[in-house]
Amino acid sequence: MAFTLHCVSVERSIAIFSPGLLGGSLVKTIQQRMPGLEVRVWARRQEAVDEVLRVLPGVTASTDIATVIQGVSLVVLCMPIQHMPGIAQQIAGCELADDLIITDVGSVKGGVVRELEAIFLPTKAAFLGSHPMAGSQHTGLAHARGDLFHQAACILTPTAHTKPEHLGRLRTFWVKLGCRIQEMAPQQHDHCVARISHLPHTMAVLTTLAALRKDTRVLDSSAGGFRDTTRVAGGDPEMWAGILMQNRTEVVAALQDAATELLELVEMLQTMDEEALRRFLAQAKALRDLLPAV
Amino acid sequence: MAFTLHCVSVERSIAIFSPGLLGGSLVKTIQQRMPGLEVRVWARRQEAVDEVLRVLPGVTASTDIATVIQGVSLVVLCMPIQHMPGIAQQIAGCELADDLIITDVGSVKGGVVRELEAIFLPTKAAFLGSHPMAGSQHTGLAHARGDLFHQAACILTPTAHTKPEHLGRLRTFWVKLGCRIQEMAPQQHDHCVARISHLPHTMAVLTTLAALRKDTRVLDSSAGGFRDTTRVAGGDPEMWAGILMQNRTEVVAALQDAATELLELVEMLQTMDEEALRRFLAQAKALRDLLPAV
Repeated sequence: MAFTLHCVSVERSIAIFSPGLLGGSLVKTIQQRMPGLEVRVWARRQEAVDEVLRVLPGVTASTDIATVIQGVSLVVLCMPIQHMPGIAQQIAGCELADDLIITDVGSVKGGVVRELEAIFLPTKAAFLGSHPMAGSQHTGLAHARGDLFHQAACILTPTAHTKPEHLGRLRTFWVKLGCRIQEMAPQQHDHCVARISHLPHTMAVLTTLAALRKDTRVLDSSAGGFRDTTRVAGGDPEMWAGILMQNRTEVVAALQDAATELLELVEMLQTMDEEALRRFLAQAKALRDLLPAV
Repeated sequence: MAFTLHCVSVERSIAIFSPGLLGGSLVKTIQQRMPGLEVRVWARRQEAVDEVLRVLPGVTASTDIATVIQGVSLVVLCMPIQHMPGIAQQIAGCELADDLIITDVGSVKGGVVRELEAIFLPTKAAFLGSHPMAGSQHTGLAHARGDLFHQAACILTPTAHTKPEHLGRLRTFWVKLGCRIQEMAPQQHDHCVARISHLPHTMAVLTTLAALRKDTRVLDSSAGGFRDTTRVAGGDPEMWAGILMQNRTEVVAALQDAATELLELVEMLQTMDEEALRRFLAQAKALRDLLPAV
């Protein structure tokens, strides 16, 4: 099966597991960009199933994994990472289509890929990790958007077990949703996102706490700088605790680099070395300016 | 002279010293919101004067301080803080109107207010500090905008020497430009902006350096979180070196608080205390959520 960017979808039907911000946005985007494709949703609670049927017309939804999984060619796991192995075990115990690919949208890959790949190796299905770099400080189906994946980077994390045709199908899927595809090993992924996503998240949290913990009245004087620098600190604590803990080795390394830079900066200020401070700020500016303007 | 928010401007004419982002935006906003008021611009270099005359129709401009200052009722100093005392000395040596108020737009107040107040105490004019919390990562007249001050917080820093009628006139001026006024002592101002503006700026710088210094390729996977958290790190190194150095005592205190929070976070990750991490993130979210949505 040759891989071309613009081929017709090779998926018969897709099952989205857990209809939160990402799962709900996936459903909306699939419906917009792959019209006619059958979309099913699994949710743990019946109330969540009822909400899905209310706000996402055109899908079927159930709390029963075997029903949702039957005959689908692609499953996307959208629950918090720590719940993925349990659900994966249950999926692996069902009747699976011969061509089934299981993927996910998790923010950490090393441990999860190892675990989920092992779960599906004995089955007819195959696991292959995805990480669409899209999200928001908001969570939940109510914030789902059909344009969430537009132009987002999506990192696929193939391993020695990954079949080229599976990689090709998964690339096609995410490209159709509007993503730019990157591929890297799971460990390389975790290093990369620790720097570009988890570090900014934790620094936004630290900035918020150091700015406001002692006295929130300084908020009256806030401007765009504080607003932007701390935006992601409004993210879901439960979800982010899971992500940071899963990727703790890489996150700690990034935070230690930040601490080293911080001590250097404090030293420059205390010794009043304005020339060194100017160079330090100019280095940061030169690096930040590498990011293309939107 | 009673202070009312909607009184006709009591200013005869206004001189803007240094036409950068803030000076240029001031001119545009004054022209929009106080039509008919005479606006003069002083610039150090003749090329800057020429640019002002080209891009800001309706103003007069000169490199000669005495000419620009003659008869005006309000001067706004918009150059980098470190250059303010030298210019203030030159202004103080000119013929000044009886009712002249000198103010500024500087981001640090303690030392500057003390110095500039002392310079003008023996003259007919009076200095009173202003800090409109508006700006951009961009600098220069080319980025000047007529809406830069819209809804911005503007902190006035009166002292024991400040006359109530001067405070009233200056409040009226900034309110007419679209600002929300706050008043606090210069030292309180410096503490407040260290937390809500200078800390976010330095944390954006540290995040950029820790994310990208070792390998810029991680930028390919960047998303909105990195973009927003580091936006202000693209600011002018020269200007920010001056600001941070002027306010170094308060900035160092804020950075030390951030370092303490950082070490706590690293400890939670290393000991895998997910419950404590969740609480830590929830505290930051609760504080960040105090900021009204735009």
